[in-house]
Amino acid sequence: MKVGFVQMDCRFGEVEKNLEKAIGLISRKKADLWVLPELFNTGYQFVSKREVADLAEAIPGGPTTQRLLAVAKERRTSIVVGLVERSGKALYNASVLVGPRGLIGVYRKIHLFYEEKKWFTPGNLPFEVYPVGYKSEKGGTLRARIGMMICFDWIFPESMRTLALLGADIVCHPANLVLPYCPDAMVTRSLENHVFTITANRIGVESRGKESLRYIGRSEVVGPGGEILCRASDKKEETSVISIDPKLARNKRLNRFNDLLKDRRSLFYLGRG
Amino acid sequence: MKVGFVQMDCRFGEVEKNLEKAIGLISRKKADLWVLPELFNTGYQFVSKREVADLAEAIPGGPTTQRLLAVAKERRTSIVVGLVERSGKALYNASVLVGPRGLIGVYRKIHLFYEEKKWFTPGNLPFEVYPVGYKSEKGGTLRARIGMMICFDWIFPESMRTLALLGADIVCHPANLVLPYCPDAMVTRSLENHVFTITANRIGVESRGKESLRYIGRSEVVGPGGEILCRASDKKEETSVISIDPKLARNKRLNRFNDLLKDRRSLFYLGRG
Repeated sequence: MKVGFVQMDCRFGEVEKNLEKAIGLISRKKADLWVLPELFNTGYQFVSKREVADLAEAIPGGPTTQRLLAVAKERRTSIVVGLVERSGKALYNASVLVGPRGLIGVYRKIHLFYEEKKWFTPGNLPFEVYPVGYKSEKGGTLRARIGMMICFDWIFPESMRTLALLGADIVCHPANLVLPYCPDAMVTRSLENHVFTITANRIGVESRGKESLRYIGRSEVVGPGGEILCRASDKKEETSVISIDPKLARNKRLNRFNDLLKDRRSLFYLGRG
Repeated sequence: MKVGFVQMDCRFGEVEKNLEKAIGLISRKKADLWVLPELFNTGYQFVSKREVADLAEAIPGGPTTQRLLAVAKERRTSIVVGLVERSGKALYNASVLVGPRGLIGVYRKIHLFYEEKKWFTPGNLPFEVYPVGYKSEKGGTLRARIGMMICFDWIFPESMRTLALLGADIVCHPANLVLPYCPDAMVTRSLENHVFTITANRIGVESRGKESLRYIGRSEVVGPGGEILCRASDKKEETSVISIDPKLARNKRLNRFNDLLKDRRSLFYLGRG
Protein backbone atom coordinates (compact mmCIF):
# COMPACT_ATOMS: atom_id res chain seq x y z
CA MET A 1 0.00 0.00 0.00
CA LYS A 2 1.35 3.40 -0.94
CA VAL A 3 0.79 6.03 1.71
CA GLY A 4 1.90 9.62 1.80
CA PHE A 5 1.65 12.97 3.47
CA VAL A 6 1.42 16.51 2.19
CA GLN A 7 3.39 19.01 4.25
CA MET A 8 2.39 22.50 3.22
CA ASP A 9 2.00 26.10 4.25
CA CYS A 10 -1.41 27.69 3.88
CA ARG A 11 -2.79 31.21 3.71
CA PHE A 12 -5.32 32.09 6.36
CA GLY A 13 -8.84 32.24 4.99
CA GLU A 14 -7.90 31.56 1.36
CA VAL A 15 -9.77 28.28 1.18
CA GLU A 16 -9.81 27.81 -2.56
CA LYS A 17 -6.14 28.66 -3.00
CA ASN A 18 -5.07 26.29 -0.21
CA LEU A 19 -7.27 23.52 -1.54
CA GLU A 20 -5.96 23.84 -5.09
CA LYS A 21 -2.37 23.92 -3.87
CA ALA A 22 -2.97 20.72 -1.89
CA ILE A 23 -4.54 19.02 -4.91
CA GLY A 24 -1.60 20.10 -7.02
CA LEU A 25 0.80 18.53 -4.54
CA ILE A 26 -1.20 15.30 -4.37
CA SER A 27 -1.36 15.08 -8.14
CA ARG A 28 2.40 14.79 -8.59
CA LYS A 29 2.62 11.31 -7.02
CA LYS A 30 0.51 8.16 -6.91
CA ALA A 31 -0.66 6.88 -3.52
CA ASP A 32 -3.50 4.80 -2.09
CA LEU A 33 -3.81 7.06 0.95
CA TRP A 34 -2.87 10.70 1.48
CA VAL A 35 -2.85 12.59 4.76
CA LEU A 36 -2.97 16.41 4.81
CA PRO A 37 -2.61 18.83 7.74
CA GLU A 38 -5.22 19.93 10.26
CA LEU A 39 -7.35 22.87 9.03
CA PHE A 40 -5.38 22.69 5.78
CA ASN A 41 -7.84 24.80 3.81
CA THR A 42 -8.58 27.60 6.27
CA GLY A 43 -5.44 28.15 8.31
CA TYR A 44 -5.34 27.77 12.07
CA GLN A 45 -5.16 31.04 13.92
CA PHE A 46 -8.71 32.28 14.21
CA VAL A 47 -9.34 35.49 16.13
CA SER A 48 -13.13 35.30 16.46
CA LYS A 49 -15.85 32.72 16.47
CA ARG A 50 -17.41 34.58 13.56
CA GLU A 51 -14.35 33.82 11.45
CA VAL A 52 -14.62 30.14 12.33
CA ALA A 53 -18.31 30.09 11.41
CA ASP A 54 -17.63 31.85 8.12
CA LEU A 55 -15.01 29.27 7.12
CA ALA A 56 -16.92 26.21 8.37
CA GLU A 57 -18.36 23.73 5.87
CA ALA A 58 -20.86 20.94 6.00
CA ILE A 59 -19.57 17.38 5.56
CA PRO A 60 -20.00 16.00 2.97
CA GLY A 61 -22.05 18.78 1.35
CA GLY A 62 -19.50 21.63 1.60
CA PRO A 63 -17.25 22.63 -1.28
CA THR A 64 -13.98 21.29 0.20
CA THR A 65 -15.31 17.78 0.84
CA GLN A 66 -17.07 17.78 -2.53
CA ARG A 67 -13.89 18.77 -4.35
CA LEU A 68 -11.87 16.14 -2.48
CA LEU A 69 -14.47 13.47 -3.26
CA ALA A 70 -14.02 14.28 -6.96
CA VAL A 71 -10.21 14.12 -6.64
CA ALA A 72 -10.37 10.81 -4.75
CA LYS A 73 -12.60 9.32 -7.44
CA GLU A 74 -10.55 10.64 -10.34
CA ARG A 75 -7.19 9.59 -8.88
CA ARG A 76 -8.41 6.34 -7.23
CA THR A 77 -7.04 7.39 -3.88
CA SER A 78 -8.21 7.98 -0.32
CA ILE A 79 -7.56 11.29 1.41
CA VAL A 80 -7.61 12.47 5.03
CA VAL A 81 -7.72 16.23 5.66
CA GLY A 82 -8.54 18.49 8.57
CA LEU A 83 -11.18 21.19 8.18
CA VAL A 84 -13.80 23.14 10.13
CA GLU A 85 -17.10 21.27 10.15
CA ARG A 86 -20.44 22.96 10.64
CA SER A 87 -23.15 20.64 11.97
CA GLY A 88 -26.28 22.44 13.05
CA LYS A 89 -25.05 25.24 15.27
CA ALA A 90 -21.90 23.40 16.30
CA LEU A 91 -18.43 24.01 14.84
CA TYR A 92 -15.92 21.16 15.04
CA ASN A 93 -12.21 20.88 14.39
CA ALA A 94 -12.80 17.85 12.21
CA SER A 95 -11.11 15.50 9.81
CA VAL A 96 -12.68 13.71 6.90
CA LEU A 97 -11.69 10.50 5.14
CA VAL A 98 -12.84 10.29 1.52
CA GLY A 99 -12.26 7.50 -0.98
CA PRO A 100 -12.98 6.73 -4.64
CA ARG A 101 -16.47 5.53 -3.72
CA GLY A 102 -17.40 8.46 -1.50
CA LEU A 103 -17.27 9.61 2.09
CA ILE A 104 -15.78 7.01 4.42
CA GLY A 105 -15.58 8.72 7.82
CA VAL A 106 -15.58 11.88 9.87
CA TYR A 107 -13.70 12.51 13.12
CA ARG A 108 -14.25 15.48 15.44
CA LYS A 109 -11.21 16.44 17.53
CA ILE A 110 -11.76 15.14 21.05
CA HIS A 111 -8.93 17.02 22.81
CA LEU A 112 -8.94 20.70 21.89
CA PHE A 113 -5.71 22.70 22.23
CA TYR A 114 -5.34 26.23 23.56
CA GLU A 115 -7.68 28.81 21.97
CA GLU A 116 -9.43 26.08 19.98
CA LYS A 117 -11.50 25.79 23.16
CA LYS A 118 -12.89 29.25 22.36
CA TRP A 119 -13.84 28.37 18.80
CA PHE A 120 -14.82 24.71 18.62
CA THR A 121 -17.24 22.30 20.21
CA PRO A 122 -15.30 19.31 21.63
CA GLY A 123 -15.66 16.18 19.54
CA ASN A 124 -18.77 14.18 20.38
CA LEU A 125 -18.19 11.08 18.25
CA PRO A 126 -16.26 8.00 19.38
CA PHE A 127 -12.90 7.13 17.86
CA GLU A 128 -13.54 4.83 14.91
CA VAL A 129 -11.70 2.63 12.45
CA TYR A 130 -12.63 2.50 8.75
CA PRO A 131 -11.66 0.17 5.90
CA VAL A 132 -9.68 1.62 2.99
CA GLY A 133 -9.03 -0.54 -0.05
CA TYR A 134 -5.73 -0.93 -1.88
CA LYS A 135 -4.41 -3.23 -4.57
CA SER A 136 -2.18 -6.08 -3.42
CA GLU A 137 0.94 -6.92 -5.41
CA LYS A 138 -0.92 -9.94 -6.81
CA GLY A 139 -3.71 -7.69 -8.10
CA GLY A 140 -6.43 -8.42 -5.56
CA THR A 141 -8.02 -5.80 -3.35
CA LEU A 142 -7.06 -5.69 0.31
CA ARG A 143 -8.35 -3.48 3.08
CA ALA A 144 -6.36 -1.47 5.59
CA ARG A 145 -8.02 -0.29 8.77
CA ILE A 146 -7.70 3.45 9.17
CA GLY A 147 -8.12 5.50 12.33
CA MET A 148 -8.01 9.27 12.65
CA MET A 149 -6.89 11.63 15.37
CA ILE A 150 -5.99 15.32 15.16
CA CYS A 151 -2.86 17.10 16.40
CA PHE A 152 -3.04 17.51 20.24
CA ASP A 153 -4.86 14.17 20.58
CA TRP A 154 -1.35 12.67 20.40
CA ILE A 155 -0.43 13.74 23.94
CA PHE A 156 -3.20 11.60 25.45
CA PRO A 157 -2.02 8.00 25.07
CA GLU A 158 -5.65 6.92 25.36
CA SER A 159 -6.40 8.30 21.87
CA MET A 160 -4.13 5.96 19.97
CA ARG A 161 -4.65 3.13 22.43
CA THR A 162 -8.37 3.31 21.73
CA LEU A 163 -7.76 3.26 17.96
CA ALA A 164 -5.39 0.29 18.36
CA LEU A 165 -7.94 -1.61 20.45
CA LEU A 166 -10.47 -0.93 17.68
CA GLY A 167 -8.06 -2.59 15.25
CA ALA A 168 -6.38 0.33 13.46
CA ASP A 169 -3.48 -0.59 11.17
CA ILE A 170 -2.71 3.03 10.31
CA VAL A 171 -3.48 6.13 12.37
CA CYS A 172 -3.83 9.23 10.19
CA HIS A 173 -2.85 12.32 12.12
CA PRO A 174 -3.48 15.74 10.54
CA ALA A 175 -1.63 18.31 12.64
CA ASN A 176 -0.70 21.97 13.05
CA LEU A 177 2.15 21.38 15.49
CA VAL A 178 3.84 24.36 17.10
CA LEU A 179 5.59 22.61 20.04
CA PRO A 180 8.63 20.40 19.39
CA TYR A 181 7.59 17.18 21.13
CA CYS A 182 5.23 15.32 18.86
CA PRO A 183 7.47 13.90 16.10
CA ASP A 184 9.56 11.93 18.59
CA ALA A 185 6.56 11.02 20.73
CA MET A 186 4.88 9.44 17.69
CA VAL A 187 7.69 6.88 17.71
CA THR A 188 6.51 5.84 21.18
CA ARG A 189 2.87 5.90 20.06
CA SER A 190 3.60 3.59 17.12
CA LEU A 191 5.74 1.29 19.22
CA GLU A 192 3.41 0.91 22.21
CA ASN A 193 0.47 0.10 19.91
CA HIS A 194 2.36 -1.56 17.05
CA VAL A 195 0.60 0.54 14.40
CA PHE A 196 1.67 2.74 11.52
CA THR A 197 1.21 6.47 12.03
CA ILE A 198 1.13 9.21 9.41
CA THR A 199 1.49 12.72 10.81
CA ALA A 200 0.92 15.50 8.25
CA ASN A 201 1.99 18.85 9.65
CA ARG A 202 2.06 22.43 8.44
CA ILE A 203 5.04 24.66 7.94
CA GLY A 204 5.31 28.42 7.87
CA VAL A 205 4.41 31.25 10.22
CA GLU A 206 0.96 32.61 10.94
CA SER A 207 0.64 36.02 12.60
CA ARG A 208 -2.88 37.01 13.49
CA GLY A 209 -4.24 38.71 16.60
CA LYS A 210 -1.58 39.02 19.30
CA GLU A 211 0.36 35.86 18.58
CA SER A 212 2.67 34.58 15.92
CA LEU A 213 2.83 30.82 15.47
CA ARG A 214 5.56 28.89 13.71
CA TYR A 215 4.58 25.40 12.56
CA ILE A 216 7.35 22.85 12.91
CA GLY A 217 6.91 20.62 9.86
CA ARG A 218 8.65 17.27 10.42
CA SER A 219 5.69 15.35 9.01
CA GLU A 220 6.43 11.64 9.17
CA VAL A 221 5.43 8.05 8.64
CA VAL A 222 6.38 5.77 11.55
CA GLY A 223 6.25 1.97 11.39
CA PRO A 224 4.79 -0.38 14.01
CA GLY A 225 8.24 -1.09 15.41
CA GLY A 226 8.84 2.60 16.01
CA GLU A 227 10.91 3.00 12.83
CA ILE A 228 10.79 6.48 11.30
CA LEU A 229 10.09 5.44 7.69
CA CYS A 230 10.29 8.99 6.42
CA ARG A 231 10.39 12.39 8.06
CA ALA A 232 10.07 15.77 6.34
CA SER A 233 12.14 18.89 6.90
CA ASP A 234 11.03 21.62 9.29
CA LYS A 235 10.63 24.37 6.67
CA LYS A 236 9.82 23.09 3.20
CA GLU A 237 6.61 22.20 1.45
CA GLU A 238 7.00 18.58 0.48
CA THR A 239 5.18 15.34 -0.15
CA SER A 240 6.43 11.88 0.62
CA VAL A 241 5.01 8.55 -0.47
CA ILE A 242 6.24 5.17 0.72
CA SER A 243 5.14 1.55 0.41
CA ILE A 244 4.01 -0.18 3.57
CA ASP A 245 2.27 -3.44 4.41
CA PRO A 246 -0.59 -2.51 6.76
CA LYS A 247 -1.00 -6.15 7.78
CA LEU A 248 2.27 -5.91 9.70
CA ALA A 249 0.38 -3.89 12.29
CA ARG A 250 -1.94 -6.80 13.08
CA ASN A 251 0.52 -9.10 14.79
CA LYS A 252 0.98 -7.56 18.21
CA ARG A 253 3.51 -10.14 19.38
CA LEU A 254 6.86 -8.75 20.52
CA ASN A 255 8.34 -12.20 21.07
CA ARG A 256 7.02 -15.69 21.86
CA PHE A 257 5.95 -14.64 25.35
CA ASN A 258 4.60 -11.11 24.87
CA ASP A 259 1.69 -9.58 22.98
CA LEU A 260 1.26 -5.83 23.32
CA LEU A 261 -2.52 -5.90 23.58
CA LYS A 262 -3.16 -9.29 25.18
CA ASP A 263 -0.62 -8.57 27.92
CA ARG A 264 -2.58 -5.53 29.04
CA ARG A 265 -3.90 -6.02 32.57
CA SER A 266 -6.77 -3.62 32.53
CA LEU A 267 -7.94 -4.62 36.00
CA PHE A 268 -5.08 -2.49 37.32
CA TYR A 269 -5.62 0.54 35.04
CA LEU A 270 -7.29 3.68 36.28
CA GLY A 271 -8.95 6.38 34.28
CA ARG A 272 -11.28 4.85 31.70
CA GLY A 273 -14.91 5.40 30.81
CA MET B 1 15.04 17.07 46.82
CA LYS B 2 18.13 15.16 45.79
CA VAL B 3 17.38 12.08 43.72
CA GLY B 4 19.72 9.66 42.07
CA PHE B 5 20.17 6.38 40.32
CA VAL B 6 22.73 3.62 40.58
CA GLN B 7 23.66 2.10 37.23
CA MET B 8 25.60 -1.08 37.84
CA ASP B 9 26.53 -4.50 36.56
CA CYS B 10 25.82 -7.48 38.77
CA ARG B 11 27.00 -11.06 39.02
CA PHE B 12 24.32 -13.69 38.68
CA GLY B 13 23.46 -15.32 42.00
CA GLU B 14 26.08 -13.43 44.04
CA VAL B 15 23.54 -11.63 46.19
CA GLU B 16 25.82 -10.41 48.94
CA LYS B 17 28.48 -9.14 46.57
CA ASN B 18 25.93 -7.26 44.44
CA LEU B 19 24.26 -5.79 47.49
CA GLU B 20 27.53 -4.58 49.02
CA LYS B 21 28.62 -3.09 45.70
CA ALA B 22 25.33 -1.19 45.46
CA ILE B 23 25.67 0.10 49.01
CA GLY B 24 29.21 1.19 48.25
CA LEU B 25 27.99 3.16 45.23
CA ILE B 26 25.17 4.77 47.21
CA SER B 27 27.54 5.73 50.01
CA ARG B 28 29.67 7.99 47.84
CA LYS B 29 26.97 10.64 47.40
CA LYS B 30 24.16 12.14 49.45
CA ALA B 31 20.59 11.83 48.18
CA ASP B 32 17.05 11.79 49.56
CA LEU B 33 15.98 9.06 47.13
CA TRP B 34 17.97 6.40 45.30
CA VAL B 35 16.74 4.10 42.56
CA LEU B 36 18.59 0.87 41.74
CA PRO B 37 18.03 -1.62 38.91
CA GLU B 38 15.51 -4.44 38.66
CA LEU B 39 16.72 -7.68 40.30
CA PHE B 40 19.86 -5.78 41.26
CA ASN B 41 20.99 -8.34 43.84
CA THR B 42 20.36 -11.61 41.98
CA GLY B 43 20.90 -10.92 38.29
CA TYR B 44 18.23 -11.40 35.68
CA GLN B 45 18.74 -14.44 33.55
CA PHE B 46 17.30 -17.35 35.45
CA VAL B 47 17.32 -20.76 33.81
CA SER B 48 15.01 -22.63 36.18
CA LYS B 49 12.24 -21.89 38.62
CA ARG B 50 14.32 -23.57 41.27
CA GLU B 51 16.98 -20.90 40.86
CA VAL B 52 14.38 -18.19 41.28
CA ALA B 53 13.02 -19.82 44.41
CA ASP B 54 16.51 -20.19 45.86
CA LEU B 55 17.24 -16.48 45.38
CA ALA B 56 13.83 -15.20 46.49
CA GLU B 57 13.48 -13.33 49.75
CA ALA B 58 10.65 -12.34 52.01
CA ILE B 59 9.82 -8.63 52.23
CA PRO B 60 10.64 -7.11 54.67
CA GLY B 61 12.08 -10.09 56.54
CA GLY B 62 14.70 -11.20 53.99
CA PRO B 63 18.36 -10.22 54.26
CA THR B 64 18.38 -7.77 51.32
CA THR B 65 15.47 -5.69 52.58
CA GLN B 66 16.82 -5.84 56.12
CA ARG B 67 20.24 -4.62 55.00
CA LEU B 68 18.67 -1.82 52.93
CA LEU B 69 16.47 -0.77 55.85
CA ALA B 70 19.65 -0.37 57.93
CA VAL B 71 21.35 1.64 55.17
CA ALA B 72 18.30 3.87 54.72
CA LYS B 73 18.19 4.57 58.44
CA GLU B 74 21.91 5.18 58.76
CA ARG B 75 22.15 7.43 55.71
CA ARG B 76 18.75 9.14 56.16
CA THR B 77 17.70 8.23 52.62
CA SER B 78 14.99 6.33 50.80
CA ILE B 79 15.85 3.53 48.38
CA VAL B 80 13.97 1.71 45.63
CA VAL B 81 15.42 -1.60 44.40
CA GLY B 82 14.16 -4.54 42.39
CA LEU B 83 14.42 -8.06 43.87
CA VAL B 84 12.71 -11.46 43.83
CA GLU B 85 9.99 -11.61 46.49
CA ARG B 86 8.77 -14.84 48.02
CA SER B 87 5.25 -14.61 49.42
CA GLY B 88 3.79 -17.96 50.42
CA LYS B 89 4.36 -20.13 47.36
CA ALA B 90 4.38 -17.22 44.92
CA LEU B 91 7.52 -15.62 43.48
CA TYR B 92 7.25 -12.02 42.28
CA ASN B 93 9.51 -9.74 40.28
CA ALA B 94 9.12 -7.02 42.90
CA SER B 95 10.44 -3.67 43.97
CA VAL B 96 10.66 -2.34 47.46
CA LEU B 97 10.74 1.23 48.76
CA VAL B 98 12.47 1.62 52.11
CA GLY B 99 13.07 4.80 54.10
CA PRO B 100 14.76 5.90 57.32
CA ARG B 101 11.70 4.90 59.32
CA GLY B 102 11.19 1.49 57.74
CA LEU B 103 9.41 -0.22 54.88
CA ILE B 104 7.29 2.18 52.82
CA GLY B 105 5.96 0.10 49.94
CA VAL B 106 6.17 -2.99 47.77
CA TYR B 107 5.29 -3.28 44.08
CA ARG B 108 4.95 -6.54 42.17
CA LYS B 109 5.64 -6.26 38.43
CA ILE B 110 2.31 -6.27 36.63
CA HIS B 111 3.57 -6.77 33.05
CA LEU B 112 6.07 -9.61 32.87
CA PHE B 113 8.56 -9.69 29.98
CA TYR B 114 9.66 -12.73 28.00
CA GLU B 115 10.81 -15.70 30.12
CA GLU B 116 9.84 -13.89 33.31
CA LYS B 117 6.46 -15.45 32.56
CA LYS B 118 8.03 -18.83 33.27
CA TRP B 119 9.49 -17.78 36.61
CA PHE B 120 7.22 -15.21 38.21
CA THR B 121 3.62 -14.81 39.30
CA PRO B 122 2.17 -11.68 37.67
CA GLY B 123 1.80 -8.77 40.08
CA ASN B 124 -1.43 -8.92 42.07
CA LEU B 125 -1.27 -5.56 43.86
CA PRO B 126 -2.59 -2.28 42.45
CA PHE B 127 -0.25 0.52 41.44
CA GLU B 128 0.25 2.76 44.47
CA VAL B 129 1.76 6.08 45.45
CA TYR B 130 3.71 6.54 48.69
CA PRO B 131 4.96 9.60 50.55
CA VAL B 132 8.72 10.10 50.90
CA GLY B 133 10.01 12.91 53.08
CA TYR B 134 12.79 15.33 52.20
CA LYS B 135 14.15 18.52 53.70
CA SER B 136 13.08 21.74 52.05
CA GLU B 137 15.64 24.50 51.51
CA LYS B 138 14.07 26.35 54.44
CA GLY B 139 14.65 23.36 56.71
CA GLY B 140 11.08 21.99 56.96
CA THR B 141 10.10 18.51 55.90
CA LEU B 142 8.18 18.09 52.65
CA ARG B 143 6.73 14.98 51.11
CA ALA B 144 7.13 13.77 47.55
CA ARG B 145 4.69 11.22 46.18
CA ILE B 146 6.50 8.19 44.83
CA GLY B 147 5.19 5.57 42.43
CA MET B 148 6.96 2.43 41.28
CA MET B 149 6.92 0.43 38.09
CA ILE B 150 9.44 -2.12 36.81
CA CYS B 151 11.15 -2.27 33.41
CA PHE B 152 8.67 -3.57 30.75
CA ASP B 153 5.77 -1.82 32.50
CA TRP B 154 6.97 1.27 30.59
CA ILE B 155 5.61 0.04 27.25
CA PHE B 156 2.05 0.06 28.55
CA PRO B 157 1.08 3.73 28.83
CA GLU B 158 -1.58 2.70 31.33
CA SER B 159 1.09 1.95 33.98
CA MET B 160 2.37 5.49 34.29
CA ARG B 161 -1.02 7.01 33.58
CA THR B 162 -2.41 5.12 36.55
CA LEU B 163 0.43 6.32 38.77
CA ALA B 164 -0.10 9.90 37.56
CA LEU B 165 -3.84 9.70 38.26
CA LEU B 166 -2.95 8.47 41.76
CA GLY B 167 -0.89 11.63 42.20
CA ALA B 168 2.70 10.48 41.65
CA ASP B 169 5.32 13.24 41.49
CA ILE B 170 8.15 10.83 40.75
CA VAL B 171 7.95 7.41 39.14
CA CYS B 172 10.82 5.16 40.20
CA HIS B 173 11.62 2.66 37.48
CA PRO B 174 14.10 -0.13 38.24
CA ALA B 175 14.97 -1.79 34.93
CA ASN B 176 17.03 -4.44 33.17
CA LEU B 177 16.59 -3.06 29.67
CA VAL B 178 17.91 -5.02 26.73
CA LEU B 179 15.96 -3.35 23.89
CA PRO B 180 16.88 0.19 22.79
CA TYR B 181 13.51 1.94 23.01
CA CYS B 182 12.84 2.79 26.61
CA PRO B 183 15.18 5.71 27.34
CA ASP B 184 13.59 7.86 24.63
CA ALA B 185 10.09 6.59 25.38
CA MET B 186 10.44 7.73 28.99
CA VAL B 187 10.61 11.29 27.65
CA THR B 188 7.11 10.77 26.27
CA ARG B 189 5.97 9.10 29.51
CA SER B 190 7.16 12.06 31.59
CA LEU B 191 5.70 14.59 29.18
CA GLU B 192 2.25 13.03 28.77
CA ASN B 193 1.84 12.72 32.56
CA HIS B 194 3.93 15.72 33.64
CA VAL B 195 5.86 13.67 36.21
CA PHE B 196 9.51 13.04 37.01
CA THR B 197 10.82 9.60 36.11
CA ILE B 198 13.96 7.89 37.38
CA THR B 199 15.00 4.85 35.37
CA ALA B 200 17.84 2.83 36.88
CA ASN B 201 19.17 0.27 34.45
CA ARG B 202 21.87 -2.38 34.43
CA ILE B 203 24.92 -2.59 32.26
CA GLY B 204 27.02 -5.55 31.27
CA VAL B 205 26.42 -8.88 29.58
CA GLU B 206 24.80 -11.95 31.10
CA SER B 207 25.25 -15.31 29.39
CA ARG B 208 23.30 -18.12 30.92
CA GLY B 209 21.35 -20.95 29.26
CA LYS B 210 21.06 -20.45 25.51
CA GLU B 211 20.98 -16.68 25.44
CA SER B 212 23.32 -13.84 26.02
CA LEU B 213 21.79 -10.53 27.08
CA ARG B 214 23.43 -7.14 26.90
CA TYR B 215 21.92 -4.48 29.16
CA ILE B 216 21.84 -1.04 27.61
CA GLY B 217 22.53 1.29 30.54
CA ARG B 218 21.36 4.83 29.75
CA SER B 219 19.76 5.23 33.17
CA GLU B 220 18.16 8.64 33.41
CA VAL B 221 16.14 11.22 35.26
CA VAL B 222 13.52 12.93 33.09
CA GLY B 223 11.61 16.04 34.16
CA PRO B 224 7.87 16.66 33.84
CA GLY B 225 8.38 18.70 30.68
CA GLY B 226 10.18 15.80 29.02
CA GLU B 227 13.63 17.27 29.76
CA ILE B 228 16.39 14.67 30.13
CA LEU B 229 17.92 16.00 33.36
CA CYS B 230 20.72 13.45 33.32
CA ARG B 231 21.40 10.31 31.35
CA ALA B 232 24.12 7.73 31.98
CA SER B 233 26.42 6.06 29.48
CA ASP B 234 25.62 2.69 27.94
CA LYS B 235 28.56 0.80 29.40
CA LYS B 236 29.84 2.24 32.67
CA GLU B 237 28.89 1.74 36.28
CA GLU B 238 27.90 5.16 37.52
CA THR B 239 25.72 7.05 39.93
CA SER B 240 24.08 10.38 39.32
CA VAL B 241 22.36 12.67 41.83
CA ILE B 242 20.48 15.82 40.92
CA SER B 243 18.24 18.32 42.70
CA ILE B 244 14.63 18.46 41.65
CA ASP B 245 11.48 20.08 42.97
CA PRO B 246 8.84 17.31 43.05
CA LYS B 247 6.07 19.89 43.46
CA LEU B 248 6.62 20.93 39.82
CA ALA B 249 4.90 17.69 38.84
CA ARG B 250 1.64 18.73 40.51
CA ASN B 251 0.63 21.51 38.18
CA LYS B 252 -0.66 19.70 35.12
CA ARG B 253 -1.42 22.89 33.17
CA LEU B 254 0.27 23.17 29.80
CA ASN B 255 -1.06 26.68 29.20
CA ARG B 256 -4.05 28.72 30.31
CA PHE B 257 -6.46 26.50 28.37
CA ASN B 258 -5.05 22.99 28.81
CA ASP B 259 -4.54 20.67 31.77
CA LEU B 260 -3.07 17.25 30.98
CA LEU B 261 -5.28 15.32 33.37
CA LYS B 262 -8.43 17.44 33.44
CA ASP B 263 -8.58 17.53 29.64
CA ARG B 264 -8.82 13.74 29.49
CA ARG B 265 -12.15 12.68 28.02
CA SER B 266 -12.43 9.22 29.45
CA LEU B 267 -15.91 8.67 28.04
CA PHE B 268 -14.20 8.07 24.69
CA TYR B 269 -11.39 5.80 25.96
CA LEU B 270 -11.53 2.05 25.51
CA GLY B 271 -9.69 -0.58 27.47
CA ARG B 272 -10.50 -0.13 31.12
CA GLY B 273 -10.71 -2.85 33.82
